[in-house]
Amino acid sequence: MPTYKLTYFDIKGLGEGIRLLLSYMGKDFEDNRFAFATDPTSPWHKLKSEFKYGKLPMLEIDGQQLFQSTAICRYLADEAGLLGANAWENLQIDIIAGSVKDLAAELMAIFRDRNADTKVEKMKVFKEKTVPFYLSIYDKTVKENNGYLANGKLSWVELWFLGFVESIEAVVEEPIFDKYTNLKALKDKVYALPNIKKWIDKRPKSLY
Amino acid sequence: MPTYKLTYFDIKGLGEGIRLLLSYMGKDFEDNRFAFATDPTSPWHKLKSEFKYGKLPMLEIDGQQLFQSTAICRYLADEAGLLGANAWENLQIDIIAGSVKDLAAELMAIFRDRNADTKVEKMKVFKEKTVPFYLSIYDKTVKENNGYLANGKLSWVELWFLGFVESIEAVVEEPIFDKYTNLKALKDKVYALPNIKKWIDKRPKSLY
Repeated sequence: MPTYKLTYFDIKGLGEGIRLLLSYMGKDFEDNRFAFATDPTSPWHKLKSEFKYGKLPMLEIDGQQLFQSTAICRYLADEAGLLGANAWENLQIDIIAGSVKDLAAELMAIFRDRNADTKVEKMKVFKEKTVPFYLSIYDKTVKENNGYLANGKLSWVELWFLGFVESIEAVVEEPIFDKYTNLKALKDKVYALPNIKKWIDKRPKSLY
Repeated sequence: MPTYKLTYFDIKGLGEGIRLLLSYMGKDFEDNRFAFATDPTSPWHKLKSEFKYGKLPMLEIDGQQLFQSTAICRYLADEAGLLGANAWENLQIDIIAGSVKDLAAELMAIFRDRNADTKVEKMKVFKEKTVPFYLSIYDKTVKENNGYLANGKLSWVELWFLGFVESIEAVVEEPIFDKYTNLKALKDKVYALPNIKKWIDKRPKSLY
């Protein structure tokens, strides 16, 4: 049995999908968390340069250091049986995953902005325009895809997406899942899966 | 024979990898280009809202609209024989591709900055710190991987990476490929492949 150690911040963000996927697979994993990078006292600021790309999450499988949340999910999904059935289905999954990474990149750029005025202004645009733009697309996609994000069935992208959107919900301080009913139904369905439910019930509380 | 139409800006950026991959596969494709988004007169600004995610590149295969450059490359690579041999090899490829997308996201955030002062400052950091940080990693990776970015052999990620790095070279206005000798050797080797060479010789000149 390989050992799994996930190093990420103490948030859901880009790491929760990996936690959900490992839980779905029934794997035990070490859940190593740093205070989020927005906290100036986080040990991350001193340790960052020790990580190859200077970015988290990092998953270690038997000590081998792996990076990039979607790359890691795609790898685990092969064993979990949560890839698409063929290249075309994987393309549909990857388009969704890539667009969510675009949304994540917009949020990261706001977090990194050191100008307090433009930061507030950018967060307003993110909350009022960017998030509704993306989530409306995903809600419609779920509606048109038999209640899933791609191919009318569960794949790794639902786990990765839901973990990330929970963070978005905390950032914009609005109940996203009440507003986008198809996403709400997706979340309820996925989080009711026995191994996922076990994780949700025991996971640490986090701000985002 | 399916028809291929690529819609992107008149730059290499995130689109050139798709052009290189289609060329490698010997496919004819329509190469539809908008003036880059930094040009206020680009038709893109009026047309943006007509594209599902408001982002390019978009590849149409028999009219079906596909998004996300790495997702598209991964799909084409299946037919091209340029995927990894197994999930582990694909993970190594996807880690590189994901990290390049991080680099791209940093550049996009600078292009989008509307404050002329911070823009100049950020571009200086990008040029002097960010680009050398990433390219040193890739140069070392190529050195350690038998002259390739992953798994010691050619995959789609070399085509996607090289197209993007050509744009980075134009943005930072320095001869990157002279400085990182392993990347230079990779570029020379890949661009000498007959179908790739044909494309390089005939492609339109672009600023980035």
